[in-house]
Amino acid sequence: MTQQSTHSLPIKGGRFLIVGGASLVGSASAELFLREGAAEVTILDSFFQGSADNIKHLAGDKRLKTVQADVMRLPQLIEATRGVDGVLHLAAVMTLTMDRDPWTGLDVNIRGTQNTIEACCVSGVKKLVFASSTAVYGYGPGIAGDLVETTPFHSVGTPPAAVLYGATKIVGEQLCRTAFAKRGLDYVVVRYATVYGERQHYRAANALYIIETHDRVLQGLRPRVIGDGSEAKHFVHVSDVARANAAAFAADATDVAVNISGPEPTTTLEIVRLVTELAGKALEPEHIEPEAGKVRLTSGGAWRLDHALAERIIGWRPTVDMREGIGRLLAWREASKT
Amino acid sequence: MTQQSTHSLPIKGGRFLIVGGASLVGSASAELFLREGAAEVTILDSFFQGSADNIKHLAGDKRLKTVQADVMRLPQLIEATRGVDGVLHLAAVMTLTMDRDPWTGLDVNIRGTQNTIEACCVSGVKKLVFASSTAVYGYGPGIAGDLVETTPFHSVGTPPAAVLYGATKIVGEQLCRTAFAKRGLDYVVVRYATVYGERQHYRAANALYIIETHDRVLQGLRPRVIGDGSEAKHFVHVSDVARANAAAFAADATDVAVNISGPEPTTTLEIVRLVTELAGKALEPEHIEPEAGKVRLTSGGAWRLDHALAERIIGWRPTVDMREGIGRLLAWREASKT
Repeated sequence: MTQQSTHSLPIKGGRFLIVGGASLVGSASAELFLREGAAEVTILDSFFQGSADNIKHLAGDKRLKTVQADVMRLPQLIEATRGVDGVLHLAAVMTLTMDRDPWTGLDVNIRGTQNTIEACCVSGVKKLVFASSTAVYGYGPGIAGDLVETTPFHSVGTPPAAVLYGATKIVGEQLCRTAFAKRGLDYVVVRYATVYGERQHYRAANALYIIETHDRVLQGLRPRVIGDGSEAKHFVHVSDVARANAAAFAADATDVAVNISGPEPTTTLEIVRLVTELAGKALEPEHIEPEAGKVRLTSGGAWRLDHALAERIIGWRPTVDMREGIGRLLAWREASKT
Repeated sequence: MTQQSTHSLPIKGGRFLIVGGASLVGSASAELFLREGAAEVTILDSFFQGSADNIKHLAGDKRLKTVQADVMRLPQLIEATRGVDGVLHLAAVMTLTMDRDPWTGLDVNIRGTQNTIEACCVSGVKKLVFASSTAVYGYGPGIAGDLVETTPFHSVGTPPAAVLYGATKIVGEQLCRTAFAKRGLDYVVVRYATVYGERQHYRAANALYIIETHDRVLQGLRPRVIGDGSEAKHFVHVSDVARANAAAFAADATDVAVNISGPEPTTTLEIVRLVTELAGKALEPEHIEPEAGKVRLTSGGAWRLDHALAERIIGWRPTVDMREGIGRLLAWREASKT
């Protein structure tokens, strides 16, 4: 039989490379893969954004390796993918960085993905899981209702950097499709909603609502909400994202893209209130005007990121709601201060 | 007055650089700009796709210069933009080339545009006209009805290379927006429908219907139509595109994108019949199955590319219908054989 009979790559016993692994999603995924019995997990990171702090809790597990390398350097990726079964490609810059430095952003997100895919093909990697984003549906007034995997990309009324970010994810997905069609590389695209959770950083425009609120209320300051705070946001907890990544490898699925979103959408105001409450503060939100020059991501009305396809294709559904997820994030922030 | 009071750059008396100028659109634009009294027109081309044949009819005009340079080389672009008032950025690869070589395609379309914009900013160019494409609306079943400038990008059911091409044009447009917002570069994005006309090449997937039909019927072979030929196509004649480029410079307009499409859409079958008739042949089309592995661009139903905004913003509307345009193209092909 020359045809591969399954596109499943079980985590147990497998050797995995996580590109951009010293990150929020990378550290949670590495932890889960090790817990599920991976034979080897290698974290590759340039430490341009990723940090050693993010993975220090994994130190001591002999199956974990760390490689400092750059997605812009194809030979480093070819070297790192040798003998690897599955690659999780996370390395990317997000909208705020894209706004500050579009040259770096386009290079990392596009050339970095080209290099990773090329390395997978050269090294005979069995399966690639590519971290895309629900930014492939865009933002602005066109975004309303249920967003499913066939929803087109809306860019009207959206800051250029957010459109650029979404476009780079569209490009990455299509490079996966091309590699599957022309070179037989199995892949699953996971389109993350706004990821939040333990080891949260300050680089994600939407997740800033959580940590900026937390920072303010801890100082006794009223939390700030831009406008009336009624616009929908849809988050997904990082532990659910890690489970989705594992499920994407393990499922007998290839050449497909699925949404990875939390149980239900919320609003900015609800998030701010929840963070304030879970921080044990009784502070009323202060409604402010948008700051000129700051990138904000808005949409047209009530919407949710549907994850029914992910359940059908990779057998995954989210388990952590916003109350639990924000609780865990705040507890981690408190604990990591000491 | 420190603020520029107008965003108009008249063609008459202006110095223009056409990047990717030895092309179908470039040669027609250079010819028109010279006819309209431009002080200088420089054609920059790598001659990777462009050809000296395309511009030989312009030789002898002392206001025309030709520079062999590469959009991947920023210093060459900075040098070429010195003293230039307006830059028309055409250099790009299209879907068929993107399919064969996505690395070159992404580099030329994205880095090439970054470099051109950077050069414009460095050299103080007054206005950039960026050749985008109605591929920013995508293809596939989502494409139906009137496509206006706010239509989102549809990629479901579309070959990866066509999605990549459209995504690179989206990226280019956003880089223009960024350059306007952060560096004050005036620009107009012109989103061309399928361009056809004199000096037609074989690189445009949709325009192939015209020249492949012509090639066959000249040999006495029945023209071929894939499927029933009922799918809509919307073309625009290259002389109308050249006029649109001139209008985009001359109009007091900036930070805007407009559709540039011909008077009315047509269908593949109508095009094939028209070419056959205008070639003076009485051959019935042969309906064939799609060829495996060949990139085809289809859509969901009847649709048209609305150009009302272009009329309002840059005072342009198309003048050449398909009968006249195909007639001119076939006459040019006949004449250039001798």
